[in-house]
Amino acid sequence: MPRLTLPEAETLACDALLRAGANPRMAALTATALVAAESEGQSGHGLSRVPQYAAFLRNGRAEGSAEPAIANQRGGAVLIDARHGLAYPALALAVEEAASRAATHGIAFAGIANSHHAGAMGLPVAALARRGLVALAFTNSPAAMPVPGGKRALMGTNPVAAAFPRRGADPLVIDMALSEVARGKIMVAAKEGRPIPEGWALDADGNPTTDAKAALSGAMLAMGGAKGALLAMVVELLCCALTGAAFGFEADSFFEEQGNRPRLGQAILAVDPGALAGADAFATRLEAFVAAMGADPGVRLPGSRRRGLAARAAADGIEVPESLLKALMA
Amino acid sequence: MPRLTLPEAETLACDALLRAGANPRMAALTATALVAAESEGQSGHGLSRVPQYAAFLRNGRAEGSAEPAIANQRGGAVLIDARHGLAYPALALAVEEAASRAATHGIAFAGIANSHHAGAMGLPVAALARRGLVALAFTNSPAAMPVPGGKRALMGTNPVAAAFPRRGADPLVIDMALSEVARGKIMVAAKEGRPIPEGWALDADGNPTTDAKAALSGAMLAMGGAKGALLAMVVELLCCALTGAAFGFEADSFFEEQGNRPRLGQAILAVDPGALAGADAFATRLEAFVAAMGADPGVRLPGSRRRGLAARAAADGIEVPESLLKALMA
Repeated sequence: MPRLTLPEAETLACDALLRAGANPRMAALTATALVAAESEGQSGHGLSRVPQYAAFLRNGRAEGSAEPAIANQRGGAVLIDARHGLAYPALALAVEEAASRAATHGIAFAGIANSHHAGAMGLPVAALARRGLVALAFTNSPAAMPVPGGKRALMGTNPVAAAFPRRGADPLVIDMALSEVARGKIMVAAKEGRPIPEGWALDADGNPTTDAKAALSGAMLAMGGAKGALLAMVVELLCCALTGAAFGFEADSFFEEQGNRPRLGQAILAVDPGALAGADAFATRLEAFVAAMGADPGVRLPGSRRRGLAARAAADGIEVPESLLKALMA
Repeated sequence: MPRLTLPEAETLACDALLRAGANPRMAALTATALVAAESEGQSGHGLSRVPQYAAFLRNGRAEGSAEPAIANQRGGAVLIDARHGLAYPALALAVEEAASRAATHGIAFAGIANSHHAGAMGLPVAALARRGLVALAFTNSPAAMPVPGGKRALMGTNPVAAAFPRRGADPLVIDMALSEVARGKIMVAAKEGRPIPEGWALDADGNPTTDAKAALSGAMLAMGGAKGALLAMVVELLCCALTGAAFGFEADSFFEEQGNRPRLGQAILAVDPGALAGADAFATRLEAFVAAMGADPGVRLPGSRRRGLAARAAADGIEVPESLLKALMA
């Protein structure tokens, strides 16, 4: 498989997005985010998205000329309009706004409306944590999961990300979708003709299924059953009701090239420990928890696998399948 | 079973707490919160807590003379020191501070340190939602669950609560512990000699168990496996690292009368929709989601069962077991 250095991969991705109509800042920020996710082993939010985004830019599902803008603000709260562009310029603005507003007001909430696929939400929270802030981030996505007791997908898989800055170490980063499993796992089972465990999905009629093919035309289920679905509902409402963004059931699937402008929503929170217990007390408490985790053998620090992969990718580059490489250069 | 009106129950609870050494405000706020939880069917956070709290007030695990105080603040962020009292006066101050700071700064974060058992976290978020704010609340609790891959309980069952104000209707309230099940379910299984499903608990050696008795001397498991445990870790760090509060593994169990001052932490967030999409747009979006939920038969609005029980309790009063009534009057 061909191997690219990270700068080579970024250049290829950036050029492909420029050719598809993204403005230079959108292309550059998107390429950086996708390569960062790819380098962490999150290939679902990595380079494979470039051809998809390029198609959306070409067919109007994403607006390549969009510049995000502040639509409303008060103190620590700010609403950013992504103006139907790819999400990354709006996410970058949200990180800047959240960081400066948290410094002034102790806490900040940056909501994003009219947005798009947000990729690995661990990236914006890690960026905030590297500035000494505790950060949370949420996004919705096109409908994939029902609410508790429901048969029809209304909500996205709605990732939750959190980052906590550490003194003298990389931030502790947690980043997960609220679905029981990634859709990719069901696709693999369908391809191999294997059944899936109960609790992963519903069929098209809204009944529980262990048939992977039936699951693909039905709905995914939340992690942790009804409790997880309720958490996904909280994410959906934080991202969309507060911002005016579209709910998952209003956004067409990303698995099809054709469809509407998804108008998804994101929410990013940043808290300055200096406004509460103080940066020193925060760091001491966090290290006490990390030490307690470390005393339990078999416990791995959240995000450590991704950090290891990213370090290796920075040194050795990343493997890119021939077909994807061809698509990037097309 | 004896039946009490809600005011009768509050008076009995308040008097019992006063006799145990709570100051008048602590006794009154605690009694109100416990009766409200009881009336919603949450008896685990209801009147059964009065004898327990009274014991803590008498043996020094809770400080009856404590008045909560602001320990630090900046803009939307405020740290409240509960000063080892029962949690409710600090929670009430956090609600007041979060409401006024969200009005000014768009978003507020009220952290509480040196706190205690926080009861039903749906109550403070509902209070904020009745003022038109979106609210989230978190608390940790004495160690009950391990981190992912761990064998030893480090974190509490760490409830998450959220409330969204509705126009012309009660707020939508979500309130759940992040454990797979409530400990009470395991206690019932142990009493009846029944096994418990896998995924509920570990035994004292940190191995998965279906033996309910073994589970009671081991650890509870998070909902949704490793993902739920990571969410509980986020709650633990938000509640304790930011505030300087004690982690679950530092707080002695509430199942024993004797023990340390738990020094638990809480975190309450409030967001003013007016600072983002605007109160009208927020209300319209929320009702669109509620309508979509209602179109899926079998879906119940979160919190509706609790609201129904509370309405019935307000009209008909609540049943109190003879033994508990005796303890309240002792």
